[in-house]
Amino acid sequence: MTDLDRQLAFLSELEKLKLVERKNGVLGGARRENSAEHSWHAAIMALLLSGSLERPEGIDLSRAVRMLLVHDIVEIDAGDSFFTDGVAREAVERAEESGARRIFGLLPEAQREELYGLWKEFDAGRSPDAAYAKAIDRLQPLLGHLATAPAGENPLRLKRSDIERLKEKNRAVSPELWELTLDLIRKSVERGLYLDE
Amino acid sequence: MTDLDRQLAFLSELEKLKLVERKNGVLGGARRENSAEHSWHAAIMALLLSGSLERPEGIDLSRAVRMLLVHDIVEIDAGDSFFTDGVAREAVERAEESGARRIFGLLPEAQREELYGLWKEFDAGRSPDAAYAKAIDRLQPLLGHLATAPAGENPLRLKRSDIERLKEKNRAVSPELWELTLDLIRKSVERGLYLDE
Repeated sequence: MTDLDRQLAFLSELEKLKLVERKNGVLGGARRENSAEHSWHAAIMALLLSGSLERPEGIDLSRAVRMLLVHDIVEIDAGDSFFTDGVAREAVERAEESGARRIFGLLPEAQREELYGLWKEFDAGRSPDAAYAKAIDRLQPLLGHLATAPAGENPLRLKRSDIERLKEKNRAVSPELWELTLDLIRKSVERGLYLDE
Repeated sequence: MTDLDRQLAFLSELEKLKLVERKNGVLGGARRENSAEHSWHAAIMALLLSGSLERPEGIDLSRAVRMLLVHDIVEIDAGDSFFTDGVAREAVERAEESGARRIFGLLPEAQREELYGLWKEFDAGRSPDAAYAKAIDRLQPLLGHLATAPAGENPLRLKRSDIERLKEKNRAVSPELWELTLDLIRKSVERGLYLDE
């Protein structure tokens, strides 16, 4: 197999991420958003919101964008999980790790190392680039939910406090991004998407 | 309106690109691929295939990726068009230009200029970054079609020669990308997706 054959096998495998459904719907509600669309949306969001960071010059924006492009590829094997699913976090992590080895393993060695490394760094969330990318990954669903869900729709009876806890790590990334997170939650409560408790 | 309000209005508007359908299906054929997924897929393809260029050092890969992330946003207003649709190219161009002004116009000034500029540069296809991004935009549907269409499916009775003409501009981008283009067309003919004429 040539390097190009490996790249094409990986790129063809990516078709499957378009079938991994998330909790949010699309506009009009005809279907759920999938992880490929979410990744695209988050990548553009990262491009636009980096100015909201206290020290945007500390971020390599292109690396953060690359992380967001690849961050959910492991869901081809592990699926998308939501905090209300009750799936044990350790089981998800094992499935994601083995998905990463299999899927990035389709690539030629140098790119396999690079993309696996980007995903691991994102997953750990400790480097400035990864912390920013993770904050965006927490913001995109909030904004998408607000943009697509009909007013008053809250079938899971989600509470404001649950969502704030879920997004809590954004607090440490920057005061501006945390304020934005709280603002989107506030607007969602006003729209009846979360209970005000 | 603050800059952040403008950014959020733009980012919410992007939900609509998830509803713009393309000709290719997704795996299993339950629905068509949309332009948001396509943009994500093309951006990753660009990241991986730049080594196939004769002079990859002449490309700013991050700019090419950004172009691909935003290249289809104008379709929110103009729709996706295919060469068999019989839509006059000039009408599409007018609709895309006015879509670009409206949609990028939602952003704060500096980002409006930046993204509109990236889109115009992509659309012209003359700079090395844009030529590469356009070549990838021509390759992604070929690979996606090959990965998702059932063998023998060719409802439009597309011919190899039509597709080669449609992708002809890839020839000038690099010998390697043109060879890849021809190889994907050849495999598609073998799979019965195009007539061998």
